[in-house]
Amino acid sequence: MPGRAPGVAYSVTIRTQYPNRPGMLGKVTSAIGEAGGDIGAVDVVESSRDLMVRDVTANARDEAHGQEIVARVRQVPGVQVLSVSDPTFLLHLRGKIEIHSKHPLRTRNDLSMMYTPGVGRVSVAIHEDPKSVWALTTKCNTVAVVTDGTAILGLGDLGPEAALPVMEGKALLFKELAGVDAWPICLATKDPDEIIQTVKYIAPSFGGINLEDISAPRCFYIEERLKEELEIPVMHDDQHGTAVVALAALSNALKLVKKTFEGLKVVLVGVGAGGTATARILVDAGVRNLVGFDREGPVYRGRNYGDNPGKKWLAEHTNPDNFQGSLKEAMEGADVFIGLAGPNLLGPEHLKGMNRDAIVFAMANPDPEVWPEEAEPYVRVMATGRSDYPNQVNNALGFPGIFRGVLDSRAREINSEMKLAAARAIASAVPANQLHEEYIIPSVFDRGVARAVAREVAAAAHKTGVAQRSRRLKGGLFRLAGVR
Amino acid sequence: MPGRAPGVAYSVTIRTQYPNRPGMLGKVTSAIGEAGGDIGAVDVVESSRDLMVRDVTANARDEAHGQEIVARVRQVPGVQVLSVSDPTFLLHLRGKIEIHSKHPLRTRNDLSMMYTPGVGRVSVAIHEDPKSVWALTTKCNTVAVVTDGTAILGLGDLGPEAALPVMEGKALLFKELAGVDAWPICLATKDPDEIIQTVKYIAPSFGGINLEDISAPRCFYIEERLKEELEIPVMHDDQHGTAVVALAALSNALKLVKKTFEGLKVVLVGVGAGGTATARILVDAGVRNLVGFDREGPVYRGRNYGDNPGKKWLAEHTNPDNFQGSLKEAMEGADVFIGLAGPNLLGPEHLKGMNRDAIVFAMANPDPEVWPEEAEPYVRVMATGRSDYPNQVNNALGFPGIFRGVLDSRAREINSEMKLAAARAIASAVPANQLHEEYIIPSVFDRGVARAVAREVAAAAHKTGVAQRSRRLKGGLFRLAGVR
Repeated sequence: MPGRAPGVAYSVTIRTQYPNRPGMLGKVTSAIGEAGGDIGAVDVVESSRDLMVRDVTANARDEAHGQEIVARVRQVPGVQVLSVSDPTFLLHLRGKIEIHSKHPLRTRNDLSMMYTPGVGRVSVAIHEDPKSVWALTTKCNTVAVVTDGTAILGLGDLGPEAALPVMEGKALLFKELAGVDAWPICLATKDPDEIIQTVKYIAPSFGGINLEDISAPRCFYIEERLKEELEIPVMHDDQHGTAVVALAALSNALKLVKKTFEGLKVVLVGVGAGGTATARILVDAGVRNLVGFDREGPVYRGRNYGDNPGKKWLAEHTNPDNFQGSLKEAMEGADVFIGLAGPNLLGPEHLKGMNRDAIVFAMANPDPEVWPEEAEPYVRVMATGRSDYPNQVNNALGFPGIFRGVLDSRAREINSEMKLAAARAIASAVPANQLHEEYIIPSVFDRGVARAVAREVAAAAHKTGVAQRSRRLKGGLFRLAGVR
Repeated sequence: MPGRAPGVAYSVTIRTQYPNRPGMLGKVTSAIGEAGGDIGAVDVVESSRDLMVRDVTANARDEAHGQEIVARVRQVPGVQVLSVSDPTFLLHLRGKIEIHSKHPLRTRNDLSMMYTPGVGRVSVAIHEDPKSVWALTTKCNTVAVVTDGTAILGLGDLGPEAALPVMEGKALLFKELAGVDAWPICLATKDPDEIIQTVKYIAPSFGGINLEDISAPRCFYIEERLKEELEIPVMHDDQHGTAVVALAALSNALKLVKKTFEGLKVVLVGVGAGGTATARILVDAGVRNLVGFDREGPVYRGRNYGDNPGKKWLAEHTNPDNFQGSLKEAMEGADVFIGLAGPNLLGPEHLKGMNRDAIVFAMANPDPEVWPEEAEPYVRVMATGRSDYPNQVNNALGFPGIFRGVLDSRAREINSEMKLAAARAIASAVPANQLHEEYIIPSVFDRGVARAVAREVAAAAHKTGVAQRSRRLKGGLFRLAGVR
């Protein structure tokens, strides 16, 4: 299998003990190398005249590979494996996020202002002027990351408890990349109406709702109803975060190949949450010719889509020629392939029929629709969802800045203009003079991306009339703080 | 009114401008003194040859008094008031709590272990071994502070948004006093069954539920049903926190007067959330003779209590003589008065009939059933809910340590033995040789209290068989971290 490089996410730390004489460590590291592992770090735990205890951390391709590496080390004569630990699991012990007080609690005075009796005056002020909750509480900076655990990463329905480490990771990214306080809410119900009701009930203390890892097509109904019924913005990130970042990447790719959205032929495979939203944002960006495929084939007018609103929308708004053929036929003359489906769906037979300067975004996780090495002869610009190839389409470039901008402008919704603005900001983070086939997407560690996204999203919110914060800029904040 | 000393919770910061010559500041501070304000701080904002701008912070008795102080300063000749701000409100701007990552997010490796792809392995591990959610996520240290805003402090039904600053304050105390991560959940429904359903749905990511400021008698039904239906501990702090701290205070007071619970005659006024729970814990502690009063008079067998389970319980389990007379009659020969009702319910006519070494806990907030100055001639030990008198019965002595102990032992409930243990731990925090009429309750700033409460609560949880953590102590944590 191409490209499965060993990574730290699958590393093992092996505690070894061996006679303290030259050459022994070399035997251990050689064994790891022979097993295909990458040495990450070597630490002395204990050293005496006779014995040495060392922790050797080795990156593996996956869990099974980690175990192979350990087995190989056990075979080295004279080496004893005392224990094996897993850095990823150790990092997760007791969770990844915590709550801090913004002010010290040291004296009676601190207590009487932050808690009773002082806090009672703040409660009364909010009761008398409900909008002041935005100025006087955490609501202004807080997002609920809500899931039912039905579509965790690419792993499926593992339940709400198993979703928690992912939601904590999301909360961590919210804070680290955009200063947003996000808290995981993992729901013990899969009933869409119960989910909607629960989110409505918990909404008062949150400034926004990030829906996450909720399976399609339920996610469409849940997001749509919550958007209608709540006065705070709601976004299902698996849909719109993916769509925004994919659009950013595609707009940069088009600059390289000098094509326009309007002239493209796009084939999109996988019309779940991310695929449907990507199709929608591409249409908003100007794409006219897009054919979507699900497991049964192309989405066209006349097929029955049950109560799947995503596919119904696609059937009505894409596929202008009502194409009903095979994927291979659809790929003939296509400029762009977008995959959000599963591994190994594309081969040379699909790729070689594409138009000149073909663009392939194979974003299935963990394994793409086609590996970059295989696609290389046929494709000019390639992106995946993986961090070990160039051009990773990573949601973390989108959601932190989008919610930052939403909270900064106190937008009551996240509309199409705001998502297009976010995509433009992400695309612009790659400097024009550095734009390159292998650099169409900025790094997730470019801290400027979230700031730029926030600025553009807030500007679009003001422009489209959904920002609610203008009054506060006119001294409202100080009035609310009792300044007269 | 006795005892309303100016406090920082009602302070005002007055920005004054006046000609820069000797004596001017004295005129300002004198004016504040004449108005009954206490000078808190004086800061220079700007000083030139001609003009001085100073912020003068003055403590007031209440909001109206703060405005009187400002009016008096405005009258000082030559002094101009530029603005007035309110330190309590300034401290609340954008809220009091925030979320932090426990680990830095600096490199690609950090990301791939804390988020994808590494986090996926943690999700799978939790799916395969559901109990591991306690080791591998924040669930082990996280409490939801849940309210519907129907009984905020002594202020009544102000709604969920107005409750948020109080819940943030509670979360802050949880963290600062006991290291517990608590997050506010303010509900946009007052329907008890909807509240129960919502809390059940959000429970998977929390290790405990602290119900807060939910009005009686709804709070009894909500807590009871949640305790039955959830596998994590649930506690309505207005009930049990109050009861635990009151019991701690009473047990120390009894040491001073050398009386036993069994021999006491107790009169308890106010049988809402806190009063009912206090009656229950006193009965658990050994009290046999207790008469509760609500607005209509004593609670006895034969009155109709509708569907108020608190009063029904009281009628069945207290008032052994089925007393039906007046409060004044009940106070004849009483050893202990406990008030959780409202201001000025007791006068000398009630107090003088009490038994020798009378104990009065007048805990109504902000104004007690009787002021300590008035009670002094008749009473040996007096406690209130106020911080400006000795012996403040403060819930903050209870809930942080109780939940710390619950989480440490992974108790599946908070039973009577655990509450009694918490009260004993709080009482013991006052050293025997320092016990005194004006020191029966430890300070809320004694950081040892929460630790002692946690230890005793956890021990009681193990003793009563509700602790679920023993297996983890046998190396389970390391196994879960992948240590083989």
